[in-house]
Amino acid sequence: MFAAESMVRTLINQGVEICFTNPGTSEMHMVAALDRVEGMKSVLCLFEGVATGAADGYARMTGKPACTLLHLGPGLANGLANLHNARRAFAPVLNIVGDHAIAHRPLDAPLTSDVQGVCAPMSRWVGTVGSSAEVSTMAVQAVQQSFGPERGVASLVLPADCAWSNVEPDVLPRAQMPGLRAVGADVVKTAAGALAKAKNPVIYIGGTACLEAGLHAAGRIAQKLDCRLVMETFAPRVSRGFGRISPTRLNYFAEQASEDLKDCDLLLIAGSKAPVSFFAYPGVTSELTPDGAQLIHLGGPADDITQALAALADILDAPAEAKIPPRAPAPALANADDPLNPGYVGLSLWRHMPDNSVICDDATTSGMGIYPWLENGPTHEWLCLTGGAIGMGMPLAVGAAFGAPDSQVFALCGDGAAAYTLQALWTQAREKQNIINVVFANHSYLVLNFELDRVGAGEPGPAAKAMLDLSNPKMDWVKLGQGFGVAAVRANTVGEFDAALMAALKACQNGEGPQLIVAEI
Amino acid sequence: MFAAESMVRTLINQGVEICFTNPGTSEMHMVAALDRVEGMKSVLCLFEGVATGAADGYARMTGKPACTLLHLGPGLANGLANLHNARRAFAPVLNIVGDHAIAHRPLDAPLTSDVQGVCAPMSRWVGTVGSSAEVSTMAVQAVQQSFGPERGVASLVLPADCAWSNVEPDVLPRAQMPGLRAVGADVVKTAAGALAKAKNPVIYIGGTACLEAGLHAAGRIAQKLDCRLVMETFAPRVSRGFGRISPTRLNYFAEQASEDLKDCDLLLIAGSKAPVSFFAYPGVTSELTPDGAQLIHLGGPADDITQALAALADILDAPAEAKIPPRAPAPALANADDPLNPGYVGLSLWRHMPDNSVICDDATTSGMGIYPWLENGPTHEWLCLTGGAIGMGMPLAVGAAFGAPDSQVFALCGDGAAAYTLQALWTQAREKQNIINVVFANHSYLVLNFELDRVGAGEPGPAAKAMLDLSNPKMDWVKLGQGFGVAAVRANTVGEFDAALMAALKACQNGEGPQLIVAEI
Repeated sequence: MFAAESMVRTLINQGVEICFTNPGTSEMHMVAALDRVEGMKSVLCLFEGVATGAADGYARMTGKPACTLLHLGPGLANGLANLHNARRAFAPVLNIVGDHAIAHRPLDAPLTSDVQGVCAPMSRWVGTVGSSAEVSTMAVQAVQQSFGPERGVASLVLPADCAWSNVEPDVLPRAQMPGLRAVGADVVKTAAGALAKAKNPVIYIGGTACLEAGLHAAGRIAQKLDCRLVMETFAPRVSRGFGRISPTRLNYFAEQASEDLKDCDLLLIAGSKAPVSFFAYPGVTSELTPDGAQLIHLGGPADDITQALAALADILDAPAEAKIPPRAPAPALANADDPLNPGYVGLSLWRHMPDNSVICDDATTSGMGIYPWLENGPTHEWLCLTGGAIGMGMPLAVGAAFGAPDSQVFALCGDGAAAYTLQALWTQAREKQNIINVVFANHSYLVLNFELDRVGAGEPGPAAKAMLDLSNPKMDWVKLGQGFGVAAVRANTVGEFDAALMAALKACQNGEGPQLIVAEI
Repeated sequence: MFAAESMVRTLINQGVEICFTNPGTSEMHMVAALDRVEGMKSVLCLFEGVATGAADGYARMTGKPACTLLHLGPGLANGLANLHNARRAFAPVLNIVGDHAIAHRPLDAPLTSDVQGVCAPMSRWVGTVGSSAEVSTMAVQAVQQSFGPERGVASLVLPADCAWSNVEPDVLPRAQMPGLRAVGADVVKTAAGALAKAKNPVIYIGGTACLEAGLHAAGRIAQKLDCRLVMETFAPRVSRGFGRISPTRLNYFAEQASEDLKDCDLLLIAGSKAPVSFFAYPGVTSELTPDGAQLIHLGGPADDITQALAALADILDAPAEAKIPPRAPAPALANADDPLNPGYVGLSLWRHMPDNSVICDDATTSGMGIYPWLENGPTHEWLCLTGGAIGMGMPLAVGAAFGAPDSQVFALCGDGAAAYTLQALWTQAREKQNIINVVFANHSYLVLNFELDRVGAGEPGPAAKAMLDLSNPKMDWVKLGQGFGVAAVRANTVGEFDAALMAALKACQNGEGPQLIVAEI
């Protein structure tokens, strides 16, 4: 048995069931092993950023790692941006990177590079297999490292000869995986004491606290104390819609974010860290905690913050159930001929989206416009652009759809963002995934137009404006979608979008595969 | 004056005239400076791999660096694969990467990463600006480092506050740039002595030895000694066509490459290093120098190998002019209805391509089929996939067209490779570049089908074959091209391709902008 086959069988025993890949020559024995062994689905991606984004999406929906299989330093490099988002999402990912055979590396052949060095910035753990005898043990170690307890990207560099060598079958059984750390009763008690004394506390949640159970506990606390519940701007996954507690989402721009937190005298950090602005601006502080406010850390991404919040709610004698607003019917469309904007897209989603949907948000300005509309709409999981590396949406949807096969998955993408990793559409078509992609065609890096103004760089001239402009030429996303085998339509008005969404949902319910709606806004 | 403006003015003084960019918030002061200052053209790219590939193409054609302007770690990461190709091409590139303001970095905002760490694997030099007072001096240093003397990628990390701070104008004048190192007379003499004694030497050239003057000198030597002249498989740029010396191109597959070199008793390395196989294979040596053959290093990429070869030719009393074969007319097309293959594409290029063309080859198996046809055809520069990171062709063409505005530029791309960086088409359309892109639609990672067989991984089953197959669904490259604003046609037969090529050339001569021909093979 090739060592590669022992490794694949070992990974399956650890619960790794899917591999997002773009392999090359140095990974051919892994390809052969994936072929020979039942139990691990291989998903081919035309670009490695699709593979890593898909692994992130799968992890966010299942809580466990998919693996990637990438080709040497350059293949890995192409996947780094979405690994950055994955590490910021604390998503467990097993990133397997082929390398040259050990004896081949010092010869500095054209594809040689420092693979470990390329892994390091976006990985919480990097290991390099040193011989075929180590392959299975290191594979188990890598899966364990992806579980943390702070979950994230574990990268395993696999030299070709270590994969191709024949060793005695070395298939390892299921190993113990690290769990989130329990938060101590003393920490909870300290937090309760501080909260009881505070006049105007804010519960600031992030990470797993934004899943249904965490929100429920946080909502109990906020209602008991009659205080604000604020969520980090880009949480990995937020459980939303009717029946769920809906925290205030911290605003993106620093001035507005400061407003969200102003006058509070205590910030309880639960599942995240103290809030900071996304970017720095001349003369503006990046730290958003109000002057003089006390900071209490209940726990971070490595901690079982759901349990801690529930314990805290109990100590505070909060009601067992948080109050939620009654379900409101979705409004009718106003004027179907009105020009489309992101708010109307949110309204149509409210009107038609099934419960239990998944929304992958890579739409920057447009996503911000949609988010509020779905607060009390159909239940859904909203997956944010955790690391700010655009090009996440359509790849994330690939993985989310594998991880949540019973959910309707949406990818909401700005046109600038979608252009980064549009190759994901091909994998969606190949795998007949019933994903609805919405590309917001504002033909601009719109957020940068705001930012250029905000950073105080002076009045922009034509060359600066041109660098933020995507209208020359306008991308034709209908053709781009069709070119990758995805059914695509354009919507210019409120009514056209509403109709296109209904048609796309019907097509997905019929198993017709991925749909693309170009929202001209 | 913002420090960013001093920097841009300083760069222009160093001869840096073009910037390939995809900026973000942290680069807004550079955007404003590029807007304010005359003399530096800004070229917007939808994906950073386009920007870095374009910088490589520009450098290969001009011998001097373009700059990039990339957004933090993830933006840089997206450009790494083509920086890998650039470093393997010894192409001078000034890679400017924005980072968070210095005080913002320790706050670990979502887009924070180890930017220097991401730069390092693909850069020959990395510098990080520490204050606005350093911006201009470090910019000069970075340009100098790109010139080497071993040329390559110099990466300059520019924190946002260093760019936005107002300093006294600090515009530096033109500095001395390192040149290639002269090869000593003793080295040349030793080589001459060894060659004179050898029975069956091979002159093995690479790097700048493959440009016209180097080839001329190497050809004189080979003709004087009546010995083989062999070129590295993936030279950065090869001067080819009628009137040029045409070395044997070392075969890609190790067995055939060994055949190219067998029985030689001396290998003179000129501008490259001792040949090694691209990949390792079980039980096969990676080093291609025949057992017992003497290795003589005349010089490597940092050396003025053209001068060294000319001196060597003189010492050996080689004829002043190398003999070249007479110009042969291009053959007529055989049967216009025959199905297309790469050889016929080569034939059409021979028939219609103007002299002084530039060919960017990212077509793997198809490129290998075209290359021999143009040996004695119109003059051209052939730019190889130096680092094996596919997705180079169309970006390289963007930069080559800016660097060689009087040349007809072609990008020859496999469909797998083209899918990596198809966003380059948009920049070509935006800049109205008269580039002819040919996408070879074999709907497969064809080379991997060969490799899977060669690595001895056993008979591939359906899952393995599927991982190398791009036919489900077939990409529609006509739509993909049109989607990015590029005129596109499909050619299925020999005659259709020939006609499409003539039409594309005419369109380019009329200044109609980029053309895409889908070669169904």
